[in-house]
Amino acid sequence: MTLKLFELVGTDAARPFSPFCWRIRMALAHKGLAAETIPWRFTEKSAITPYSSEKVPVLLDGDTAVCDSWAIATYLEDAYPDRPSLFGGDGGRAMARMINAWGDVTLVAGLAPLIVADIVKLLGPDDTAYFRKSREARFGRTLEEVASTRDSAVEGFRKSLDPLRLTLKAQPFLGGAAPNYADYIAFGGFQWARAVSDFALLKPDDPVHAWRGKLLDAFGGMARNSGGYPV
Amino acid sequence: MTLKLFELVGTDAARPFSPFCWRIRMALAHKGLAAETIPWRFTEKSAITPYSSEKVPVLLDGDTAVCDSWAIATYLEDAYPDRPSLFGGDGGRAMARMINAWGDVTLVAGLAPLIVADIVKLLGPDDTAYFRKSREARFGRTLEEVASTRDSAVEGFRKSLDPLRLTLKAQPFLGGAAPNYADYIAFGGFQWARAVSDFALLKPDDPVHAWRGKLLDAFGGMARNSGGYPV
Repeated sequence: MTLKLFELVGTDAARPFSPFCWRIRMALAHKGLAAETIPWRFTEKSAITPYSSEKVPVLLDGDTAVCDSWAIATYLEDAYPDRPSLFGGDGGRAMARMINAWGDVTLVAGLAPLIVADIVKLLGPDDTAYFRKSREARFGRTLEEVASTRDSAVEGFRKSLDPLRLTLKAQPFLGGAAPNYADYIAFGGFQWARAVSDFALLKPDDPVHAWRGKLLDAFGGMARNSGGYPV
Repeated sequence: MTLKLFELVGTDAARPFSPFCWRIRMALAHKGLAAETIPWRFTEKSAITPYSSEKVPVLLDGDTAVCDSWAIATYLEDAYPDRPSLFGGDGGRAMARMINAWGDVTLVAGLAPLIVADIVKLLGPDDTAYFRKSREARFGRTLEEVASTRDSAVEGFRKSLDPLRLTLKAQPFLGGAAPNYADYIAFGGFQWARAVSDFALLKPDDPVHAWRGKLLDAFGGMARNSGGYPV
């Protein structure tokens, strides 16, 4: 068994920063599965074309290639049923789908304008050109213009975390007493942010801040020791 | 075994309209449990004071009283383990907590300004006076002022449903192939809305619209036949 994971990096191959790759890196650790990392950059599309994907994460498990973080998570759950569960049963697997959607449209999309201008600092020249052009087209503004309002925009972002915050006031993790894939979905966004930006997303007294710290420490501090700014 | 449920109504005792009571009414049906309804109105605080609650739902199960919809749902799951599960396992129970928080802060709070002015039409004089005073204090505006912007505000509400919508594009229910408590959390908000208001919340081609229709039809059309406007 040799697992390999394509992970998004910039000039520093030891500092993976994709929120979606981090969901899977945490999921692999949760299942106690070692995976070789294959550093991948925005302009290396050809490296993953054989797997019919234009984005990472892409997981290779022997002859099997799986693309898209949600598909990879469910693949891991099914392929390694004797390892700790990512979902805690069928109900959890179904509900994690909505938490995954919340993670995409509220968390990741809400984080993007706050940190996107910092991402170019991690990239080499080719990636910088690609990234700036594609993201400025998406936002309809320069990256610097997007970032210019972040001191006020962060207030709305913090408010958008209320469903996460209220849950963490009632229980230690989204997964209950211990973290599971629901936590990794949300944590991926925060690990992305700290990998690329020193912008302060959370107030120190926010329950989300304490929860993030516990996940940074999980698995021997794997996320905390993978590059990024202190939070 | 005699279950009794205090349910919020107005002048029509057969038209319960609280989003939180509807979560429990659906949960009871899911578990195949009959429950006698005790119609309760905003100004009847004294009727539930013995149960240390100021709000409904309150469930009475013999000598046991349980207050708050989340506490009632978990009570039902634990007290009736041989009935169909509301959560589909421990993972689902944990993750439903975040969906519950999303249902409160995004769905119910997002719906409120769109329909609050219509609620008084269902109420008798005492309840109307109480409701108008307490809600206008909460909003800092008259109910009519709150409602005056709903034609534009509904756009933001629809957008806020994206996590629900994206999930329903991938699977039939939040609970997976069949509905469970995650669905009832969200559905409670929509049933509240149609019980009190004819304001069109959803476009007909929205996957959320089709999902709502399936839940209106569930349990022999229980929700559809409990009063309210066609949707």
